[in-house]
Order: sequence, then C-alpha cells, then structure tokens
Amino acid sequence: MDRKKIVVALGGNALGSNLPEQFAAVQHTARPIADLIQDGHEVVISHGNGPQVGMIQEAMTLLTRSNPEKYVPCPLSVCTAMSQGYIGYDLQNLLREELNNRGIFKDVTSCLTQVEVDPADPAFENPTKPIGAFLTKEEADALVKERDYKVVEDAGRGWRRVVASPKPKEIVEIGTIRDLVNSGHVVIAAGGGGIPVFRTDGYHLKGAAAVVDKDFTSELLAEELDADLFIILTAVEKVAVNFGKPDQRWLDELTPDEAEKYMEEGQFAKGSMLPKVQAAVKFARSKPGRTALITLLDRARDGIEGRTGTRIHM
Amino acid sequence: MDRKKIVVALGGNALGSNLPEQFAAVQHTARPIADLIQDGHEVVISHGNGPQVGMIQEAMTLLTRSNPEKYVPCPLSVCTAMSQGYIGYDLQNLLREELNNRGIFKDVTSCLTQVEVDPADPAFENPTKPIGAFLTKEEADALVKERDYKVVEDAGRGWRRVVASPKPKEIVEIGTIRDLVNSGHVVIAAGGGGIPVFRTDGYHLKGAAAVVDKDFTSELLAEELDADLFIILTAVEKVAVNFGKPDQRWLDELTPDEAEKYMEEGQFAKGSMLPKVQAAVKFARSKPGRTALITLLDRARDGIEGRTGTRIHM
Repeated sequence: MDRKKIVVALGGNALGSNLPEQFAAVQHTARPIADLIQDGHEVVISHGNGPQVGMIQEAMTLLTRSNPEKYVPCPLSVCTAMSQGYIGYDLQNLLREELNNRGIFKDVTSCLTQVEVDPADPAFENPTKPIGAFLTKEEADALVKERDYKVVEDAGRGWRRVVASPKPKEIVEIGTIRDLVNSGHVVIAAGGGGIPVFRTDGYHLKGAAAVVDKDFTSELLAEELDADLFIILTAVEKVAVNFGKPDQRWLDELTPDEAEKYMEEGQFAKGSMLPKVQAAVKFARSKPGRTALITLLDRARDGIEGRTGTRIHM
Repeated sequence: MDRKKIVVALGGNALGSNLPEQFAAVQHTARPIADLIQDGHEVVISHGNGPQVGMIQEAMTLLTRSNPEKYVPCPLSVCTAMSQGYIGYDLQNLLREELNNRGIFKDVTSCLTQVEVDPADPAFENPTKPIGAFLTKEEADALVKERDYKVVEDAGRGWRRVVASPKPKEIVEIGTIRDLVNSGHVVIAAGGGGIPVFRTDGYHLKGAAAVVDKDFTSELLAEELDADLFIILTAVEKVAVNFGKPDQRWLDELTPDEAEKYMEEGQFAKGSMLPKVQAAVKFARSKPGRTALITLLDRARDGIEGRTGTRIHM
C-alpha cells in the first residue's frame, strides 16, 4: 500500500466526558491510529473537545463563584488551551505506549495550537453552540449584563451560555506542525478546533469567545499540510441519505458535486453530519488527488483500503 | 557576542496567581527573553506552575464536590497537563508577538512534556510540597481515608494536601524538544517541572501524585540539549551568603566546590535558593564549559554579558 499523509479528526464525544471515561476511550482510540502508523502512513491527529472544555469551563465557573475577588471568569480561549493539555496528555501518552508495544519508537507530540478567526464571521452575530454549566435565570442575567454573554434557555433544564462557532482562517502554529511532521513525529494538533484568536492591531492575538468547529479546522490543517487523505471519524460507518427512513441508503463514493446536491436537499443534520460533509467536500475540491473519508474509528484502516466508509473525491 | 544555546527557567511565582496577573506578568517576561533571541541565542524556556496548578486543582476540587457521581478527583498529573496548556498559551502567544514586533518571525512552540520520576525517590516517603485549596479537618480526613492523601495543618489557615517533590529521571518528550530546537523554533517545555509519571510495566507511564521541582527538570533539560548556559531567573539579582544579616555578601562567581561549601554551611533557604544553587552546581559540573547563571528576569541579558548575576562554573 502507498505511504500516505493522513490527517485524522477525532470527535470530542468519542473522548469521554470525565477522566476515567477519557482514559478508556483514548486507550481504545490509540489502537486503530497505531494501525495507520504501523502501515507506514504519516499521521497527524486533531480532536474535538466539546465535553472536555465544558467540564473545564464548569470547574472554572465554580472557582470564580467561590472567590470572585480573586478569580475573574476564565475566557473560553483559556479553557480550550487547558483542554488541549488535558486531552493531549492522555492521547500522546497512550498512543506512544501503543506504538512502543508494537516496537515503533516514534515521538508523539501535542502541539498547543491557536487558530485565527474573523471577527466579521457571521457566526458571531448568531451564537448557537451551548457550552459549560447550566445556570439559574439570575446567574444568566448577570452574565448577560456584566459580560455581554449570550444565553439560551435549554429545554427546561436551565440557562446556558451560547458561543459562536466561526470558521478557521489560519492555523497560527502551522510552521511548527509542519516541521514536526517532516521530522517524522506523530503530531496531535488543533485540539478542540484550536484556541480561537482574533488578529488585532499589529501582531497581537486576542482570545475569542468562540469554539471553532473541529471538522473545519482539521480540514484546513489537512490542506496546509498537503495531506493525501483526510479522515473524519464519527459514530457511523458511512454517510447515509434518507437517514433513519425506510429508503435509507448508505453512500460509498461521492463526488463533491453529488455531496452538494444532497446538502441542498437537507440530507445531513446541522451540527452533526452536515459540517463533516462540508469539510470533506472542501478538502476533496482543494486539489486533484485528495480524498476525504468519513467512517467509524474502528474501521479507519478498512476505509483507507477501500472496504468501507464514505469516500469523497473528485 | 557568541551565539549560545540557553535554557531559561522561569519561576511560577513570576507568572501571577490569576488570569489578569498572568497576562501582565508574561507580557513583561516576554521582553527580556526576546532580547536573548534577538541577540542570536537559541533559547528554550521552562517554567514553574505553583500558583497556576494550585488554581486548577482548586477548580477541579470544586467540580468534584459539586457532582461527585460524575467527577472523580482530578489527579495532580492531569492538573499539571492543564497548567502547561494554560501557561504555555500566554507564553507562546506573547513571546511570538514581542518577537514579531521586532521583525523576528520565529515559531514559538509549547511542547506538552512528561517527566519520569522514580517511585523509590525518597521524596515520596516524606511529601512536603503543599498544593491546592485549604480544606476543613473533615475534608482532609476524608481524603486521607479514601484516597490515601497526605495532609498538613497550615499555620491555622486550614488543612492542605502535601505531595512529594521528587527528582526528574528522564524527560519523555526530549526527542521532540531537541528536533524543534534544531529546526530553529523557540521552545517552551517541561512546564511546572513536567507532568510527573512513573514507568510501570512495559511502556506504560502512570501519572504520579507529585510536583517535580522545576529547577531540577530545567537543569536536566539543559544537560540533555547540551546547552552552554542555564539561567535560573528568580526574585534576587545575585545569590548571597549571610543573606539578610549585617555581613551579607553578594556572590558574582562561584565554583561548584565553593557553592557546595556554602550549601553545607546552610547558607541557602530550603525550597527557595537551595534547589536553585543545587541545580546550578549540577549543570556546571556536568561538562566543562557549561555555566549556570542565577539572576533577575530583567537582568538576564546583562548577566549573559557578565555584568551581573551569580555565575557558577568550573
């Protein structure tokens, strides 16, 4: 089989919502990723952080409440930075162990990654991504007044902060990631879609109250690294049309044009399969020869070998 | 001036004990470090994390208390991993900005770093380093009983957990750090003395309930990278004997033998100047031509040029 450069995007939900869950999930995740490395591919891993950044944000909110004199509310960008440490530690540790157990002694490196977003991104006008702890009406009102937060009432369970999910413009640490890949390292980068930052005057980067969609950041990473293959690992083996209906049909191969036709038909769920297909289409269109693959974590190797998953390419 | 390879150890206390303090402190810290890079030196930065890992541990303790069904207590190793994300984000961001403002476009990279410690290290028999929130007697007793924590009563202010501060044996990610340095990156590594881990069966690394002394980890980093100069930045411009007494005397130059004589006399405070001098002596003795320098952050450049600080070399 050809040696390929592969960017693998792992879902945050696949990483567990507390420490023991994360450890077990990452231990499981390490095996199929080690398979790809053992097969000779160059692998770069990105990951989501939904439940993890939620946990950290909740902890930091409790800290502020316990001592508001000392602790100002922790910006979401800082919580994302912490989550890259939290997830990266388990991921780099357990993947290195899995590789070592197979006699492969590659360095595995987590790279703290910032991602520039555009303050004019329409996502900032309409924040939709709920994050962090449930709040009382009073707490929510206070945050709206004091910190200009946006909040929504969440199905009778209380109020939650919602933030924007803008598109990534630029990966600030791309030079580092590229050098590490070229030196033969297995790199973990752009965790949680990256730490979102705005470029302000001159060279200053200011943390943004946002969560960048990890599928789009991973796609940008794959383009920037000139990857051959971009794999989005998710909870289903293939993309389907008429999902959940009697005439449901699994898709094996798609051109970007076919995928767009299905998107226009509203075949894919917003905030779930839709951004994955959008990111896959963007990658497949970015250069001839590039393929995006959407499949289950455990079927990644089979997917690369063409035995399963949905492949999108020109 | 000669181009030198320099490892700079920053104190955690110099980084501030909450978010706005850290931002201001790191902004200040970036300037003298950028001076060294502008002068053409290869610079690797390590840092402490005392107040920061304390803050994160306190937040994670509050999270566990708020929902013990969902959240098990967060191990100290995981808190240290989060603190590397927390501190590294500010440090890499503000140092990059300071360099860019000077027309220097080097990549600045935080490398998540684990450090192996020895379970037989005598430090584990006698944990002395207090961390995290103050506890009530009842909370302290419960942690002793349920989780085998060690606790001490802290001067009438409540109980605190104490952990071991073992010596570092090996920097797990040294290969990554070396490759990044050799590729011309400014590297931030081994934050908080590194994430402490034990090597257990085979290749598994298990998080250790410990805080590795950042001066010793930084020294090991300097040896492993074959640095010419190891700079420990602290709150005094020079090391003194008879500190605070009428016959106090600042020291400009010391051989390792002279430094050891002073240590035997008990000239340096435990947990403060003593580990710094011990780490400096270890580096100075490790190979001919190596120099350790202890001075103030703002005087680092003057120290390198021989105008201030305490220099320890053979």
